[in-house]
Amino acid sequence: MNTNPIGIFDSGIGGLTVVKEVRKIVPNEDIIYLGDTAHLPYGTKSVEAIIQFSIANAEFLVSRGAKFIVIACYSSTSVALDILQKKFSVPVIGVIKPGAKKAGSLTHNGKVGVIGTTLTIHSGAYEKAFKELNLPCEVLGKACPLFVSLVEEGWLDHPATELVAQTYLKPLKDDRIDTLLLGCTHFPLLMETIKKIMGGINYVDASQELGREIVTRLKEMNLNNPEGSGKISIYLTDFSMNFKEIGERFLGEPMKNFYRVSLGIV
Amino acid sequence: MNTNPIGIFDSGIGGLTVVKEVRKIVPNEDIIYLGDTAHLPYGTKSVEAIIQFSIANAEFLVSRGAKFIVIACYSSTSVALDILQKKFSVPVIGVIKPGAKKAGSLTHNGKVGVIGTTLTIHSGAYEKAFKELNLPCEVLGKACPLFVSLVEEGWLDHPATELVAQTYLKPLKDDRIDTLLLGCTHFPLLMETIKKIMGGINYVDASQELGREIVTRLKEMNLNNPEGSGKISIYLTDFSMNFKEIGERFLGEPMKNFYRVSLGIV
Repeated sequence: MNTNPIGIFDSGIGGLTVVKEVRKIVPNEDIIYLGDTAHLPYGTKSVEAIIQFSIANAEFLVSRGAKFIVIACYSSTSVALDILQKKFSVPVIGVIKPGAKKAGSLTHNGKVGVIGTTLTIHSGAYEKAFKELNLPCEVLGKACPLFVSLVEEGWLDHPATELVAQTYLKPLKDDRIDTLLLGCTHFPLLMETIKKIMGGINYVDASQELGREIVTRLKEMNLNNPEGSGKISIYLTDFSMNFKEIGERFLGEPMKNFYRVSLGIV
Repeated sequence: MNTNPIGIFDSGIGGLTVVKEVRKIVPNEDIIYLGDTAHLPYGTKSVEAIIQFSIANAEFLVSRGAKFIVIACYSSTSVALDILQKKFSVPVIGVIKPGAKKAGSLTHNGKVGVIGTTLTIHSGAYEKAFKELNLPCEVLGKACPLFVSLVEEGWLDHPATELVAQTYLKPLKDDRIDTLLLGCTHFPLLMETIKKIMGGINYVDASQELGREIVTRLKEMNLNNPEGSGKISIYLTDFSMNFKEIGERFLGEPMKNFYRVSLGIV
């Protein structure tokens, strides 16, 4: 048993869905969440910048006593997971592998589509994860950067969103994938539009998989805390417009303890 | 005469269009350009964060000897111009007023539309500028945040872009504006699509107006340098993907001297 909090970070507030999933299973764990909203979005930044931001995020969580670091951001996991695992003595896990594992268990024809930010797709992180998990899948990646902005604009079922989705998803449909990984925290909000185009295939939203993986790993390492108070502390590097309203949509409950924090980089 | 460089900053590389406009008129002036690409975009960040970033940007330019500070970013001008003018001893001008002045000179029915980021539009900076310039116009603002992402994705004439533009611009068309201010560095790249919807009204791209205003002000204050070498130094807080290719599109010439710089904030 370890009474310290779990540390979770993301480039923004979308990673609060992972907090929600963890709480569904282990409501007593204390959680510190850090959203680097001052640098948001990560998906269009350089690899070097994201590594620098990710190290600063993890350092902050460790300085606050995190017993376990979770990278809820796909772009950050894509380029910084290995580096953080080497750099920190606490365990670090990311959002890529749990989703890949689930997709590998669902596909029948071995053709898995992955949609994400330009950075996530170009990094090849999913191909690497499938290989490391010994899953002989053909991974078809497609960068969908406009999905992020469309979700932030709240155009979840606007005709323009459907037109953008048709353009982005056409090559995956033509390639007859039978499983689609939603490789960005924002994309599950577009599930209805995506399903309208892709039809009755398998869909993987890694937040749920990551939530389950966190709980499993905590127990395995005897780091769990069944008697905690279930306190959630949310730190953001910027209080951007409507952050509370949008954050509560992802978290699924009221945001009580939230703070603005400066990490002193860039 | 003052042989020091002009300092120009923006949240990204779109402000290089202002560098281009200045060079057309005074090719001998030396220019230092700072693009805060690590925090890009500003339009979705908080007012406090943008003020903090803007101060750091101006401090950097002043530390490099800038004789005159130009804010090429609409979001930054909207919320930080007054603050920078009070804080720094070198003159500071922004991109809002030169555009407002031009729009005021063009409108016949006094109905001027302004499109920009959510922050620029919500700040009320254009209404304030028209008032300060004693231009009795009715200013109709419309936030068009998706335009930024569509330009960054390069979808300048995609059917989805036209659909987004129709949705955003409908209220301005219904209100029968006769002049439209493009209040964001990215928007002039969508001019063709915008014109298709809005038709034969007046359009104002403030980069040109700002370029002319810079040259006029330098001469008025005897800060001009007709015998400089015309050197352009470009500093970016992040080298994001394809920055050189996109930067040269805005600048209209090859980028020769460019550097990554850390400003030590957030």
